[in-house]
Amino acid sequence: MSAPVPRITLLAGGVGGAKLAEGLAAVCPPQRLSIIGNVADDQEFHGLWVSPDIDTLTYSLAGLIDRQQGWGLAGESHRLLEGLATLGCETWMSLGDRDLATHVLRTQLRRQGMRPSDIARHIATALGVEVELLLPTDDRLQTRIRTPEGWLAFQEYFVRERCRPDVLQVRLDGVETARPTPEALAAIADADLLLIAPSNPVVSIAPILAVPGIREAIEASPAPCLAVSPLIGGRTVKGPADRMLVAAGRECSNLGVADGYAPWLDGLMIDHADAADRDHLEARGLRVATTRTLMADAADKARLAGELLAFAETLHGEALACP
Amino acid sequence: MSAPVPRITLLAGGVGGAKLAEGLAAVCPPQRLSIIGNVADDQEFHGLWVSPDIDTLTYSLAGLIDRQQGWGLAGESHRLLEGLATLGCETWMSLGDRDLATHVLRTQLRRQGMRPSDIARHIATALGVEVELLLPTDDRLQTRIRTPEGWLAFQEYFVRERCRPDVLQVRLDGVETARPTPEALAAIADADLLLIAPSNPVVSIAPILAVPGIREAIEASPAPCLAVSPLIGGRTVKGPADRMLVAAGRECSNLGVADGYAPWLDGLMIDHADAADRDHLEARGLRVATTRTLMADAADKARLAGELLAFAETLHGEALACP
Repeated sequence: MSAPVPRITLLAGGVGGAKLAEGLAAVCPPQRLSIIGNVADDQEFHGLWVSPDIDTLTYSLAGLIDRQQGWGLAGESHRLLEGLATLGCETWMSLGDRDLATHVLRTQLRRQGMRPSDIARHIATALGVEVELLLPTDDRLQTRIRTPEGWLAFQEYFVRERCRPDVLQVRLDGVETARPTPEALAAIADADLLLIAPSNPVVSIAPILAVPGIREAIEASPAPCLAVSPLIGGRTVKGPADRMLVAAGRECSNLGVADGYAPWLDGLMIDHADAADRDHLEARGLRVATTRTLMADAADKARLAGELLAFAETLHGEALACP
Repeated sequence: MSAPVPRITLLAGGVGGAKLAEGLAAVCPPQRLSIIGNVADDQEFHGLWVSPDIDTLTYSLAGLIDRQQGWGLAGESHRLLEGLATLGCETWMSLGDRDLATHVLRTQLRRQGMRPSDIARHIATALGVEVELLLPTDDRLQTRIRTPEGWLAFQEYFVRERCRPDVLQVRLDGVETARPTPEALAAIADADLLLIAPSNPVVSIAPILAVPGIREAIEASPAPCLAVSPLIGGRTVKGPADRMLVAAGRECSNLGVADGYAPWLDGLMIDHADAADRDHLEARGLRVATTRTLMADAADKARLAGELLAFAETLHGEALACP
C-alpha cells in the first residue's frame, strides 16, 4: 500500500518561487498542491492592475512563461506599449501584448467587483493551471521602498530603477487592515507540509506572512514547515534579496533568512556553497539539508522538489513523498 | 490680394466622414479647419472606452488609418485580443494592439477625470493631427438600435450582428441631458462655412445635431451650410444608412437625407447617379451640385473637397476656396 499523498501548501514570490512551484507540480498531483502568492508588488500601470508575482506563478504553471527571463509570456510582442510610448506615456514597465490581456481582464473584473482571488483563479484556470493558486489577501497591500531619493513603489524600485538605489527601509502599506482570504487560511490549516520557496524573504514572503492571520495559521499548524534558501554562496541568484535582508536589519546569510521564519520553521534547505552555515542553523534548532539549489531547467526543479519532500519525510517520520 | 481663408467646420461620422475630412485637410490650412465628430457609437469593451468614429477621424488625419478597411490602424496585430479570447472573453469587436493603446490611455484619462474633449485632443496631437478635432459633447450619448431581437448597442448591431437585423427604431440615450462642448459651439459660431460629411444621417450626423444647442448654433449661424450625400444611386456605399433612413421614417433618397438637415441646409452635393433628384431638391429651395462623390483615393478626397468649396462660393457670392 502506498503512502497517502500529502497536502502541500507553498508560499512563493515571483521568479524563484515559480520555479519551485513548477518542480512541485511536476512531482505532485495537482489537487494536493496549493500555492499562496504575493500581491504586495502589484501596481497599476496605464490604469491597468498588474500583479507581477501572481502572473509569474500562473504563466510558469501554465507552461507559458518566457524561460529566458523567468517572467512574462514566451514569444511576446510589445505593440501596445509602443503605442503608449507614441502617445507620450512612460513605458519603463515592460508589458507584452498577450500579458496585457491578463491585466485588461483583471482590471475589468476588479471594477465589476469580483474578488481578486476569484479573478486569479479564473485567469489561471483559463490558462490551464490545475494547482490551486491562492492570494493571501483580497485587500490592497503595497510594498514601499525608501531610498536616498525617497519612497518608491516596489516596481519603481525593482524595474524602473533596476534595484540600483540603496534600500534604507521597507514598508508594507495596508498591512494593518488586510484580511486573509479564507482559501489561504484553509490551505495552511489543511496542509500536511508547509513550504517556503526560495523567494525574497523581505519583499516576497514577508508580505504574505504579514497578512494578519497567516502567520498565526502557520504557527497553529502541526505540519512541518520547510524553507528553501534563496541565497547561494551568501548572495542571491537574481534580485536584491541580499541587500534587502541588510536593510531589514537582518544578517545577509542563511541565518538572516531563517530569522524571518523563526520560530515556526522546522528546516532549511541550503546550497552546498553555504554548507558552512549548517552548524549555526542547527544550533538554533533547525534541521538543515544541503543540495544544489539553483534551478536552471525542468529537471533541476523536479529534483529540488523531490529532495525537499524527502527532507520533509526525515522530519515527519513518515512518508510524505508524492507517488 | 488673395481672398481671406474661410474658417470651415465639418460635422463628420466615421469612415465616409474621415475621407472628406482628409480631403479638406489636403486643400485647407489646418488652423482653418475644425471637425466635430460623433461619440454616440462609443462603447466600453473589456473595461476600455472605445470611440470608433473619433478614432477613425484621428487615425485618418494622422495618416495612420488602414486604407483597405477605412478604420483601424495600418499594419495592426491582434495579440491582446487573442489573449482575451484565450481567457474566455467575447472578442467580436476587432481591436488591434496599437489601437488598444488609444483605448487604454483614453480609459485611464477618463477615470482620472479629464474631459473627453481634452483626451481626444491629447491623442490627436500626440499622433500629429493638426486640424482641430472636437467632440459635440463630453457627456455620455449612446445610439441604441431596436431590432426584432430587442435593443442593441450600436456596435452590437453594427459589428457583432454586421447590420443584418432589421432596424425597427433608433434611440439616442442621454440626449436630454447632454451639454454641448464650448469648443463645438465656438467652431460653429466662428465658421464661414458649415459642412456635413457624407456620413450616416441617422446614426452619425443626427447624434451630433441632437446635442441640445448644436442645431440651434447652426441655425443661428449666417454661414452657408452644405452637405455631401452619402447615397450613390439611392444606396449607401457602405453601412446601413439607407435602411436606417427608412427606419427613421424618412425616404431612402437624397430627399430623405436633406430632410434631416432642413430647414437650415443651403445646398446638397449629390452623385451623378442621383442627378434625377435635382429637381425635387431644388423645389424645396436647396441648391444642388452633382459630381462623383465616391472617394476611392487621396486624389478623389481632395477633388471632392475642392468642388465642395467651389460649390460654397456659388452660394456665398464671394471666394471661399482655400489658397
